[in-house]
Amino acid sequence: MLEELELDGHKTVSSQGLARQSGVTPAQVRKDLSYFGNFGKRGLGYNVARLRKEIRLILGLNRRWRVALVGAGNLGSALFAYKEFRRQGFDIVAVFDAGADRVGQRWRDLTILHVDRLREETERLGMEIGVIAVPARAAQAVADRMVAAGLRGILNFAHRKIFVPPGLALRTVNLAIELESLAFAIKALIARPAKGVRGRSLPR
Amino acid sequence: MLEELELDGHKTVSSQGLARQSGVTPAQVRKDLSYFGNFGKRGLGYNVARLRKEIRLILGLNRRWRVALVGAGNLGSALFAYKEFRRQGFDIVAVFDAGADRVGQRWRDLTILHVDRLREETERLGMEIGVIAVPARAAQAVADRMVAAGLRGILNFAHRKIFVPPGLALRTVNLAIELESLAFAIKALIARPAKGVRGRSLPR
Repeated sequence: MLEELELDGHKTVSSQGLARQSGVTPAQVRKDLSYFGNFGKRGLGYNVARLRKEIRLILGLNRRWRVALVGAGNLGSALFAYKEFRRQGFDIVAVFDAGADRVGQRWRDLTILHVDRLREETERLGMEIGVIAVPARAAQAVADRMVAAGLRGILNFAHRKIFVPPGLALRTVNLAIELESLAFAIKALIARPAKGVRGRSLPR
Repeated sequence: MLEELELDGHKTVSSQGLARQSGVTPAQVRKDLSYFGNFGKRGLGYNVARLRKEIRLILGLNRRWRVALVGAGNLGSALFAYKEFRRQGFDIVAVFDAGADRVGQRWRDLTILHVDRLREETERLGMEIGVIAVPARAAQAVADRMVAAGLRGILNFAHRKIFVPPGLALRTVNLAIELESLAFAIKALIARPAKGVRGRSLPR
């Protein structure tokens, strides 16, 4: 939001303005931000450019992160092509796979490496984040390799819960489960009598 | 998991077996499943094929869903190429955009349509789910169009919270936020003194 406000030429924004777009209360905006510091001036609101910079600093987005992508299949190639990652400071600097048909392929300026080389490349390239884009059954083994390689954080796109030791950060994105849960919710909505019908059957 | 067990030739699975791989307790597995019906036999466990079929039915995956994709940019094309959606029963049957350079382009067997046609095409093609893959600032307007078009569920990939009326199902996947929160977590881990170091400074 702050990025857009800045692009649109806004210099300041109130907690009300931030709240309106984010779906929380102004008090929550103020409380959340005050947890990290004193960013706003009473009656003047927040300086958009400064608050954006501060939040990027808090999130660790004031630097670039070197990312290892494991899995050069359909999902892996989609993630590799997804420019938003690079725009946010995340650079996929190496791609790994275990398939003989994929290892050695060129993806832009990278050559897909065998996953056996994950550890040495993690050290050599100074990678910190691993992205898992392999089939579910291979996910835990890849996560174990990432832990052994010294990666500090894992973003798991495989359709399987994985386990990592406490010293690592883990986030999971399960696209199929989002769609499945959407289908389930729609089913439930359709099964429920429609609002208008129920309304008419009730006394006014 | 059940899909893999079936592929591997397993006929039955215990709640312990399901629990081990999913990271919950066997009691939780039994409790969750019992909410939907009586699937297992005491001492025999669950029939893998039957349980899988029942769960697909519960989730609404025993049918195909027709999906409208709005946004033919970088993310939209990645989602369009992602085969897992189709494999799970979700067919993108129309793609929409507002950009003059994109409308009219061919994507496999589809022609990208102007988003102004969302409503008529939703009716004509019997679409029920909308996927939003547009820039943040356009997301709410697209959601409003999807509501007006009669779509029943929305999967939002835009980096912005959107609001829909109660009669619709909404799921959000914010890939950038997952990466940002991962970076934040890694930063916090690195800032914390390493375990080994802290361990050595404590009396044994």
